[in-house]
Amino acid sequence: MADTPPIATDDGCPITRALAVIGERWTLLILRHAYRGVRRFADFERELGIAKNVLSDRLKRLVEHGVLDRTPSREDARSIEYRLSPKGRDLYPVLMSLALWGERWEPQGSGCVLRFRNRSSGAPLAGVRVMDGDGVEVGPRDLVMEWAPAAGEDAA
Amino acid sequence: MADTPPIATDDGCPITRALAVIGERWTLLILRHAYRGVRRFADFERELGIAKNVLSDRLKRLVEHGVLDRTPSREDARSIEYRLSPKGRDLYPVLMSLALWGERWEPQGSGCVLRFRNRSSGAPLAGVRVMDGDGVEVGPRDLVMEWAPAAGEDAA
Repeated sequence: MADTPPIATDDGCPITRALAVIGERWTLLILRHAYRGVRRFADFERELGIAKNVLSDRLKRLVEHGVLDRTPSREDARSIEYRLSPKGRDLYPVLMSLALWGERWEPQGSGCVLRFRNRSSGAPLAGVRVMDGDGVEVGPRDLVMEWAPAAGEDAA
Repeated sequence: MADTPPIATDDGCPITRALAVIGERWTLLILRHAYRGVRRFADFERELGIAKNVLSDRLKRLVEHGVLDRTPSREDARSIEYRLSPKGRDLYPVLMSLALWGERWEPQGSGCVLRFRNRSSGAPLAGVRVMDGDGVEVGPRDLVMEWAPAAGEDAA
């Protein structure tokens, strides 16, 4: 056996596993609206201009993966709402790093553009910092990708 | 006309524009390998276990969008290499925020797992911070999404 297993098509990479849950374009656009406070099927459908069956499939998958919680509305128990779970809210850095990259590298020439600001100061979002466990920022050239035993393997 | 245009299917959102370039599962997996230093078609093909025609199409799109540069190899000018451009390298926070989310929320029960560490200290990556232009961290509840004129519209 080689010392370092090949990455190939395995699922040992957390990026691969993340993309297995949210790696589909509609899914991230649905989550963007969930961040804006959209909660009902009909509102997602109208905002996204998405086919009912596609939306239904994507919402079902997000509920199955625990990214959205499917609950009766607090105002009207006959109505169903889809709300971000803690797992879903934790996708915030993914969406914001996509937004900042889109603003910087795919600017739009005309019309209105969705921008992101700090509520208290009004300052626009400016960047995303990748931090290590010591609180030190880690840039692309400081990064090592390495194979480690999965959680729970240490005691085996 | 309404004061606030609907988001609907427009492309006024930078997340939508980012996903138009990289919002496809294979694309982000290709870029992950580019970060690891993979540069040649045959190496991407072997590492990803991807069909030649799909890989060819995805690489072509990434070159067209300026995410990868297609250049002759420095060692062998007959050989073609795909290297991350500055635009491609700037996707680092997207890939790392996906990796950290995958590690936290889609842990793998057994086998080897790809982990990310700071080269100098060995400390594992721990989080991603979204910052505003004043250097203040912005959490999901501090965020405002608002419509603004696109760049170049101010002078019109």
